[in-house]
Amino acid sequence: MSKLTAPNFDDSFSPHRLRIDGDRLTRRLVELGEIGGLEGGGCARLALTDEDKEGRNLVVAWMAELDLDIRIDAIGNVTATLPGREDLDPVMMGSHIDTVQTGGIYDGNLGVLTGLEVIETVKKSGFVPRRPLTVAFFTDEEGARFAPDMLGSLVYVGAMSAEEAHDIVAIDGARLGDELERIGYHGSTPCPGRAPHAFVELHIEQGPVLEREAIDIGVVTGVQGISWQQLTITGQSAHAGTTPMTLRRDPGYVAAAIAVFVRRLAEELGEPQVGTVGAIDLHPNLINVVPASATITVDLRNTDEQILQKAEARLTEFCQEIAESEGVTIEAVSLARFEPVEFNEQLVDSVEHQAKALGLSTRRMPSGAGHDAQMLSRVAPAAMVFVPSVNGISHNIAEFTKPADNENGANVLLQVVLSLADQADTDTDTTPPELNQSGKESS
Amino acid sequence: MSKLTAPNFDDSFSPHRLRIDGDRLTRRLVELGEIGGLEGGGCARLALTDEDKEGRNLVVAWMAELDLDIRIDAIGNVTATLPGREDLDPVMMGSHIDTVQTGGIYDGNLGVLTGLEVIETVKKSGFVPRRPLTVAFFTDEEGARFAPDMLGSLVYVGAMSAEEAHDIVAIDGARLGDELERIGYHGSTPCPGRAPHAFVELHIEQGPVLEREAIDIGVVTGVQGISWQQLTITGQSAHAGTTPMTLRRDPGYVAAAIAVFVRRLAEELGEPQVGTVGAIDLHPNLINVVPASATITVDLRNTDEQILQKAEARLTEFCQEIAESEGVTIEAVSLARFEPVEFNEQLVDSVEHQAKALGLSTRRMPSGAGHDAQMLSRVAPAAMVFVPSVNGISHNIAEFTKPADNENGANVLLQVVLSLADQADTDTDTTPPELNQSGKESS
Repeated sequence: MSKLTAPNFDDSFSPHRLRIDGDRLTRRLVELGEIGGLEGGGCARLALTDEDKEGRNLVVAWMAELDLDIRIDAIGNVTATLPGREDLDPVMMGSHIDTVQTGGIYDGNLGVLTGLEVIETVKKSGFVPRRPLTVAFFTDEEGARFAPDMLGSLVYVGAMSAEEAHDIVAIDGARLGDELERIGYHGSTPCPGRAPHAFVELHIEQGPVLEREAIDIGVVTGVQGISWQQLTITGQSAHAGTTPMTLRRDPGYVAAAIAVFVRRLAEELGEPQVGTVGAIDLHPNLINVVPASATITVDLRNTDEQILQKAEARLTEFCQEIAESEGVTIEAVSLARFEPVEFNEQLVDSVEHQAKALGLSTRRMPSGAGHDAQMLSRVAPAAMVFVPSVNGISHNIAEFTKPADNENGANVLLQVVLSLADQADTDTDTTPPELNQSGKESS
Repeated sequence: MSKLTAPNFDDSFSPHRLRIDGDRLTRRLVELGEIGGLEGGGCARLALTDEDKEGRNLVVAWMAELDLDIRIDAIGNVTATLPGREDLDPVMMGSHIDTVQTGGIYDGNLGVLTGLEVIETVKKSGFVPRRPLTVAFFTDEEGARFAPDMLGSLVYVGAMSAEEAHDIVAIDGARLGDELERIGYHGSTPCPGRAPHAFVELHIEQGPVLEREAIDIGVVTGVQGISWQQLTITGQSAHAGTTPMTLRRDPGYVAAAIAVFVRRLAEELGEPQVGTVGAIDLHPNLINVVPASATITVDLRNTDEQILQKAEARLTEFCQEIAESEGVTIEAVSLARFEPVEFNEQLVDSVEHQAKALGLSTRRMPSGAGHDAQMLSRVAPAAMVFVPSVNGISHNIAEFTKPADNENGANVLLQVVLSLADQADTDTDTTPPELNQSGKESS
């Protein structure tokens, strides 16, 4: 591990003793969560809506209070940088502040606000790290309004051009580029963005493992691969009373049969395979009409690329069989495809080491969800810190992480970042990871 | 059979020689179908929408041109009556002019416009039948906006009060009574309405049988029973990536499993059992969120009440099993329940006889769909005349019946109605059918 030094400081000060302000962090989480707030808790700030704009403005205002160097890029990603002693690549933190329609106030937001908290803690201590510190929030991580998910970080690392992303159309019909303009977040900083020295993202686990095992900190070793497909099934609309079962070409039945197959497939392949049909739309969606068409989404994930491919192949096979037997057509469109990602080994070790140094219990684990860190891992060493999710609930207004756990995670993030910020370019292996290790996009 | 006489007419005239004007009928079908017209044909005039209002106004204008006695009742049913020689109960024809969202221009409309055509033909001939002739259109037969279906005729026969019906809320949230007022069709004629001497409804088959067997006229013996349920499934919204399959309580999966079960159930029970899940709504309906809840509709139909009850019982049993195994709750609400209906034997014979007398081929058959005639059969002898549907298609913009078939059907209707209109009260059994024969509503 690298050694931390504080060369421009008096002898009594050690950055190791720095701690973030847990109350300030909680206050900000709650204040940001009130924007787009839902009855019973949680919030809805779909990417580039009015609510997202208001949330962005609040976080930018907090960045401005710290007098950081704020940049907005061509896809609406926002970075805020505290200068270091030397003009080196910054150590970057961050996540996203968009949410799903029934989102919690922690998912994404916690990574951004702990990043801000780390910077505020360092700045107010008077200590100036060797490297600049950057906190970022990336556009449309959830993909709940514009597919694919992790779009902002995808564009940040140059895997999609901003121009291509601008033409993506939302589930509500809006064009991404127009929405960026509308909310005032089409910035002038070009994409792809500057590759940082390293990237560390703090996030809630969004699963039940840490809580069940009473572990403080999840040391994230990588992210499972994701396959998102949209299937459009076209059959024959008909009267629900007069059309004998044998003469039906029913897209609603086919949609249902595929959803049941996805469940069976995931069960059969076993953990960590998951499969979800989260959206079903029938047309015309009436009680007494055999639908003319149906659209469903299929979300398949696995940490093993081979098994994920097998799951995709078996789904395709099932669709071909049922399309033929029912006399419907099924058109499959890939909305997103990411191979599993393994994080930088040295950084993963550092997260584990710093957590233990703070007296916290740790557990190595893959991430079941996609995160911006997996995009950043294409251009820089990256890692993640997980904190426990109560009942494993996320993407739900009941999402909750205890203030003490948030504070623990933020202090781990602080120490990992301070350690990285002290590194010279020769202190660690900062050559970009090989692309075939960190995942690449498939069509 | 009753004998037709023309006591107030010269010797060369016989009502048997009267024929409707097929071109006029076609013109009106097309003109009415243009209101709410859809690209590629068909039309959308959901009950009590602006489009329905415009369609109603057109038909009422045609009624007014014939100087008929037009009445609008408290549920928006419209009747138009041509006086007879004697003040007896009228012979009633009619159907509905509301459509499903992707409706054809024949379903319902044909029964109303052939009724109008019969009256116009009789009136212009100068012949005055013994009994008044009435043509009616009933509100919300489709049930596509307000459940249950056949609502207007249900209220007409007194099986539901107008007040209760006014409080029904549409799929778009509107209150039926408010919508009636809004479009100007909350009439002053009280419900239940006057029981006619007899009721005859011409309708397209909406199935493939007549066309396949090259038969001109379907002699409808009764209507299959209908069971409509709405199932609301409540589970646990969760992240689609981080929630292991074994920990899921997924209402989307349960909705799909029920839809697949309904298909298997109908196949297993065999014809004429049909089963359809035509509407599925997931919440929040997003690609990466296990839904929190799902709502689906189940439409079960059979001509055999015992088997229909068996189908319902097996569905309930399946729901209980899957609710327990998945850890969700399922709330079932009956949206409509009608027992199978058998039409008046004497009237069914008359339809067959008059069609054959016109040189047309006939086939006795049950109706697979619900129709206003089954409601009227609770208070008067009722029957139906079917004409062939090309490819059996209905509830679809491709719905089509050949002009020659419409004309044949309308001439059968004309002769059946003239025969009925000549009857004295003692000529036929006009005692109301027993309620347990003509179906009763269940909760």
